Amino acid sequence: MGEAGEGWARARLKLDRIHHLGLIVSDLEHSLDSYARLLGSELEVRRRMEEEGMEAALVRIGGERVELIQPLGEGPLKRFLDRRGDGVHHVAWVVDDLDQALGQAAELGQEVVPPGIRLGLGGERVAFLHPRGMGGVLTELVEERP
Amino acid sequence: MGEAGEGWARARLKLDRIHHLGLIVSDLEHSLDSYARLLGSELEVRRRMEEEGMEAALVRIGGERVELIQPLGEGPLKRFLDRRGDGVHHVAWVVDDLDQALGQAAELGQEVVPPGIRLGLGGERVAFLHPRGMGGVLTELVEERP
Repeated sequence: MGEAGEGWARARLKLDRIHHLGLIVSDLEHSLDSYARLLGSELEVRRRMEEEGMEAALVRIGGERVELIQPLGEGPLKRFLDRRGDGVHHVAWVVDDLDQALGQAAELGQEVVPPGIRLGLGGERVAFLHPRGMGGVLTELVEERP
Repeated sequence: MGEAGEGWARARLKLDRIHHLGLIVSDLEHSLDSYARLLGSELEVRRRMEEEGMEAALVRIGGERVELIQPLGEGPLKRFLDRRGDGVHHVAWVVDDLDQALGQAAELGQEVVPPGIRLGLGGERVAFLHPRGMGGVLTELVEERP
């Protein structure tokens, strides 16, 4: 009875582990070169994504992946860069099942950034939760491919 | 000969994996509560560190650790929070040997944030590299305890 009270049976958003760190950069070429020299980072994939208004690269640093994002033209990414400069843009977490995670997120009052589910750099299904409900951190959810 | 040219034998800063994500928060109590309800985060350690001008907590979310930092009074942390609001403050990476890593960082022109080596929340030896040379990301190096 008591255990069935407020909050007990609530959905939770189950984040598994960090998939990658998303960094915004003003000059992708320069950043790729600089991370390679400094940290020995290795390029996994690089792609121009016109619809997302960005050119992005996924690099491996140690056991982690870091996504470097350069805005193309005007838009939200460019405004983010202008306001804050180079730095962390988002944090991506692996979830087991993206549809289920988004259902839980909605139930918990989290706002999904339009257009919802899209394809990530590595071809995974991903979606973004608005920083407002996530402690100021733009949070990407990634469903890894089997 | 050619291989011994510029850049070949250069030191590199070897980052192993992400140790934790450091988030700055305006209200630690509220954030702890909110992350627990939303993500099922588990508190590992919480400590008031007057000398660092902060109260901090390390929580576990999935397979990762997240450090929540509330500034105490005025100082750099409070200024950071006032300027940017709640969000990512730093990214901490595991290094094998902190002294060696700091030597490499210095050789690579990276600036260590004073006072240099200090003790982290979990009692590990840690140091911070200035965001200037690290793509705008305040970078903590953590030597895990054996």
